[in-house]
Amino acid sequence: MDERFDLIQKNGYGIIQNKKWFSYGIDAVLLSHFAEFNPDEVVVDLGTGNAIIPMLITLNHSLKKVYGVEKQALVADMAKRTVVKNQVENIEIIESDILHIFDHLKPGTMDVVTCNPPYFKRGGGIIGDLSIKATARHETTALAEDFIKAASKLLKTNGRFYMVHRPSRLVDLFYYLRKYNLEAKLIQFVHPNRDEVPNIVLIKCVKNGNSELKYKKNLYVYENNRYSDDIFEIYRTLNIDVF
Amino acid sequence: MDERFDLIQKNGYGIIQNKKWFSYGIDAVLLSHFAEFNPDEVVVDLGTGNAIIPMLITLNHSLKKVYGVEKQALVADMAKRTVVKNQVENIEIIESDILHIFDHLKPGTMDVVTCNPPYFKRGGGIIGDLSIKATARHETTALAEDFIKAASKLLKTNGRFYMVHRPSRLVDLFYYLRKYNLEAKLIQFVHPNRDEVPNIVLIKCVKNGNSELKYKKNLYVYENNRYSDDIFEIYRTLNIDVF
Repeated sequence: MDERFDLIQKNGYGIIQNKKWFSYGIDAVLLSHFAEFNPDEVVVDLGTGNAIIPMLITLNHSLKKVYGVEKQALVADMAKRTVVKNQVENIEIIESDILHIFDHLKPGTMDVVTCNPPYFKRGGGIIGDLSIKATARHETTALAEDFIKAASKLLKTNGRFYMVHRPSRLVDLFYYLRKYNLEAKLIQFVHPNRDEVPNIVLIKCVKNGNSELKYKKNLYVYENNRYSDDIFEIYRTLNIDVF
Repeated sequence: MDERFDLIQKNGYGIIQNKKWFSYGIDAVLLSHFAEFNPDEVVVDLGTGNAIIPMLITLNHSLKKVYGVEKQALVADMAKRTVVKNQVENIEIIESDILHIFDHLKPGTMDVVTCNPPYFKRGGGIIGDLSIKATARHETTALAEDFIKAASKLLKTNGRFYMVHRPSRLVDLFYYLRKYNLEAKLIQFVHPNRDEVPNIVLIKCVKNGNSELKYKKNLYVYENNRYSDDIFEIYRTLNIDVF
């Protein structure tokens, strides 16, 4: 059994992960920190994997309900067991393909949608042949459109969509976001360090928002071969116990 | 008379400018440096103003022909006099609105299109009420679409489009570029300094190119309250005599 329980916070909250499949990476942490939430909002995380984003945002905000949508049965089951083990009652894991999400959730009901697309998960392979598929550009693009289309339909007017993705796909993302009335309002580029180009991008969109993109200061992950102060601060803000 | 002749290079080449209207800014210099040219290519610069971009690229590359398109009669006249005064025979200034450019040039004939949109010129007001119009977001967006549409139609397949614009309009730009089959392939953000967010963006597109955006390292204009080494190097590369 490759499964294990990794602590998230000192107070005992943690997450069931399987190293053979994947474990949560910095993308999920950065997105959980980048996204903003108001009390009692209803949130859905698309492609939730082991539910790291629902866990991190539930532990740090007073949300009414957080849905985590995962299409792979074994992963969804692991996420469900994480929720039970942590006794976090306002998280609900839905096993569903993104294309069938409206069998489970009603359109126009979400305050916030988050998305760390599965083909972008790092730190290991992905179950089945998804990692192979992801190398085919057409598939990756189609997936991005499916996620964006679903996110838009799930959101209320003025609802927010937060996503993390690869900077190399920015044209696709902006094109589909505009096509589905999710207007990108804030962007942050994440660079491995000050001398390299960005390899992660965080985007905040508002459904039916007007057209004006603002920039958050660049984030540099490493400084002098260790995590930068900014990254330490993000982990501290989220109360993540990893040091 | 507010007109004057400003030297570009030590060898006597220069440009007629009118401070009451506008004089060329760093955007034009950055775009002239960012754009790449092969010998004997045919180029058109849209919204050429006082022809600074045709002058800079002609002085630095062996181009077959460079067209400069300017809709404002007085500015086009000034650009024409600059060309005559410098005896640069392969530059031709066309007085035309972008919407009527195909009365003058044939579709699918250009190797390269450059564009520093007029509503983005800095360092002074713009003739007539264009500066007022530019503050209306709808107009700015419509202009961007007109320029992008014209650029695409002017280019050969695999022809290149280089533009400079405001980062706040990146979604509009990417959306219209994709709509008109100009695929953004390379992007560079220009920041006033290391601590500020970008205020200029340079984009290279390829007509009918595939979808994969690369990033050029960020450029910082100022360092310790003077031009950065990178900026000095750009002026040196272009042989601009400003120091």
